[in-house]
Amino acid sequence: MNHNLLVGQSGGPTAVINGSLYGVVSEGLANPEIDNVIGMVNGIEGFLADHTIDMAPLKENGELERIRTTPGSYLGSCRYKLPEDLSDPVYPELFQKFTEKEISYFFYIGGNDSMDTVSKLSRYAATVGSDIRIIGVPKTIDNDLVLTDHTPGYGSAAKYVASTVREIAIDASVYDNKPSVTIVEIMGRHAGWLTAASVLARKFEGDNPVLIYLPEVAFSPDAFIEKVKEKLTKTSNLVVCISEGINDGNGTFVCELASDVGTDTFGHKMLTGSGKYLENLVKEKLGIKVRSVELNVCQRCSSSCLSATDLDEAAASGRFAVSAALDGETGKMINFIRKSDDPYILEFGTADVNEICNKEKAVPEEWITKDGSDIGDEFIAYARPLIQGSVEVPMKDGLPYFAFRK
Amino acid sequence: MNHNLLVGQSGGPTAVINGSLYGVVSEGLANPEIDNVIGMVNGIEGFLADHTIDMAPLKENGELERIRTTPGSYLGSCRYKLPEDLSDPVYPELFQKFTEKEISYFFYIGGNDSMDTVSKLSRYAATVGSDIRIIGVPKTIDNDLVLTDHTPGYGSAAKYVASTVREIAIDASVYDNKPSVTIVEIMGRHAGWLTAASVLARKFEGDNPVLIYLPEVAFSPDAFIEKVKEKLTKTSNLVVCISEGINDGNGTFVCELASDVGTDTFGHKMLTGSGKYLENLVKEKLGIKVRSVELNVCQRCSSSCLSATDLDEAAASGRFAVSAALDGETGKMINFIRKSDDPYILEFGTADVNEICNKEKAVPEEWITKDGSDIGDEFIAYARPLIQGSVEVPMKDGLPYFAFRK
Repeated sequence: MNHNLLVGQSGGPTAVINGSLYGVVSEGLANPEIDNVIGMVNGIEGFLADHTIDMAPLKENGELERIRTTPGSYLGSCRYKLPEDLSDPVYPELFQKFTEKEISYFFYIGGNDSMDTVSKLSRYAATVGSDIRIIGVPKTIDNDLVLTDHTPGYGSAAKYVASTVREIAIDASVYDNKPSVTIVEIMGRHAGWLTAASVLARKFEGDNPVLIYLPEVAFSPDAFIEKVKEKLTKTSNLVVCISEGINDGNGTFVCELASDVGTDTFGHKMLTGSGKYLENLVKEKLGIKVRSVELNVCQRCSSSCLSATDLDEAAASGRFAVSAALDGETGKMINFIRKSDDPYILEFGTADVNEICNKEKAVPEEWITKDGSDIGDEFIAYARPLIQGSVEVPMKDGLPYFAFRK
Repeated sequence: MNHNLLVGQSGGPTAVINGSLYGVVSEGLANPEIDNVIGMVNGIEGFLADHTIDMAPLKENGELERIRTTPGSYLGSCRYKLPEDLSDPVYPELFQKFTEKEISYFFYIGGNDSMDTVSKLSRYAATVGSDIRIIGVPKTIDNDLVLTDHTPGYGSAAKYVASTVREIAIDASVYDNKPSVTIVEIMGRHAGWLTAASVLARKFEGDNPVLIYLPEVAFSPDAFIEKVKEKLTKTSNLVVCISEGINDGNGTFVCELASDVGTDTFGHKMLTGSGKYLENLVKEKLGIKVRSVELNVCQRCSSSCLSATDLDEAAASGRFAVSAALDGETGKMINFIRKSDDPYILEFGTADVNEICNKEKAVPEEWITKDGSDIGDEFIAYARPLIQGSVEVPMKDGLPYFAFRK
């Protein structure tokens, strides 16, 4: 009987989720205890439909090396939630397929929801006495998984945000003889980790972004306008970074205020983001030049701002996952344990996936300034090591040369 | 008497307008015929308010080298239009200041409107017998200046657009078992050069972006929806690139259709972009997953996708401008003359600025496919050389290390 390895990706992509895939696959192909390395196309959902690919040929034709620096999920993703009820027929169906394909090791690279899949599969395995080792490999630009110092994907997204906000601030400052406000909307509906990274964009004390708002703090449009007025007396071209998830502290997002503003030609509510809403607010209340910029999906798929630290850790966590499974671990997620900020020292470990799934880690309150409009030095010490180092992405004809499934 | 050089930047910034500044300044500082190199802060408007800086110290402290790879306008910009009437008192006022500062050479780096300033100043100089040499150095991401093969700033913006659209297409494809549409809105109100560059993002024939719409062709929302329906049968995750300036062919922008959709809480018309309008249209007509992404200012200020070809040409055109002025030229703009696509060979020349200002160059009709939804091979041959080569931007603490005025 063979001992095959099955690997899949799930949830929203990042710039380094393929780095983790590279780590799992290259370690799996290199290890003599593993016979075949099989990829699930579109995660567990695709696996149920028998969509799998043999990964070995990708090493031979050079594609695996390109996968390492390609953003997005090479294997495709899914948002498929396994049923809560472990007596649902989908479980024996899945394990029947595992048996047919002689799977001994199962790796799922993803965030919260993917760890829920790892939890359910490993609990079902225990009930039926299966000895398949089921391991989660973390990823999310949101950095909101508990029991881990940080998650792969966050460092590169943070580097993209900090670099881009620095560039936007330079762009906004060219008409520095006229006041203006630029609002940058950054991903993160419930946790402000990525928005907080904009603080790294400052070139000197007091530099832009002068104001930073996270979803962890209740947002008041009136207080915001007063703050903007105050800061404009010192900085003529103000840059404000906000999380898409800023809210009133009682569960109403600022972007939901915006969605009340009108209906479109089809009679639908207009949906605009929090940035657009604040742009209109500043225009109305202060009557000065204002622009909003939504960083959108670019912050999770840019290969031009890859953090070498992040990509290396993504690949290493994938390799570590294979070792952990071979050591007999199951029902675990690989976690990141920081030993020191400076010098930055990181170790890998494993944590019970049942303690991780369906929980969210917020930015600590004490890392946010008292008035809720800025980020403290503790965060900077935490985040700075994660954006270090650049990655040389292979280029062809002047553009990044990416891997893709044919 | 000294022979001083005065240089300024005007209009919207680009990623390489400081490359041109670097070219003018480094050549000016190196040339024994030039005594001092003086920068206008905020262009001609700042100069009128006596805001100038001596550029020589920047060479000594290393700032000038950093200026070369810093996006935005180091000297600050303005949107100040000189009066049409050359008997306006602003002209003798300006030339009095030129005399006081012993200016012999005047360089203005900018687009259409800046060339209008060069035109007026040189015409006024002729009427009063001034021998100041007045030269325009081109820049614009829009690539819409006439009498030049292309303009500095376009190559890097085109490289940013092509790279980013390739990444967005990869991001959009991770749920490739569900249909979706992603609309990318790209800068260019009247000319589609930058939007056309998205064609370079394709990794193979038929790849995304499958549809590309420029402002040069009348846009029909009904025809657009039919096209999207047709293309979705072949490509499950469709990426469509549109220019912000797509219009009905009779002067009404698609984004103006959008502005009719409602009023905000302040009673103002909601202003949304063309991309958002088409997102809503697709949602209504086809009921599938749809997202719009506005590349916004990032496409003109990103240092991470600098084209080495573009940056080198920007600096070289600045140096060439100084030589041309020393050779006695005035009332001219430096123009780019392509000798060959492959191998790519470029020469610099000068063109009468009066023939350039206040005109716009559109993408040739024959470079757009007949149905107006794609770009032909002639454009690819034209644009590909302009995005070649990467630039190593100095890094510090994991982020680009930019120059800025203290």
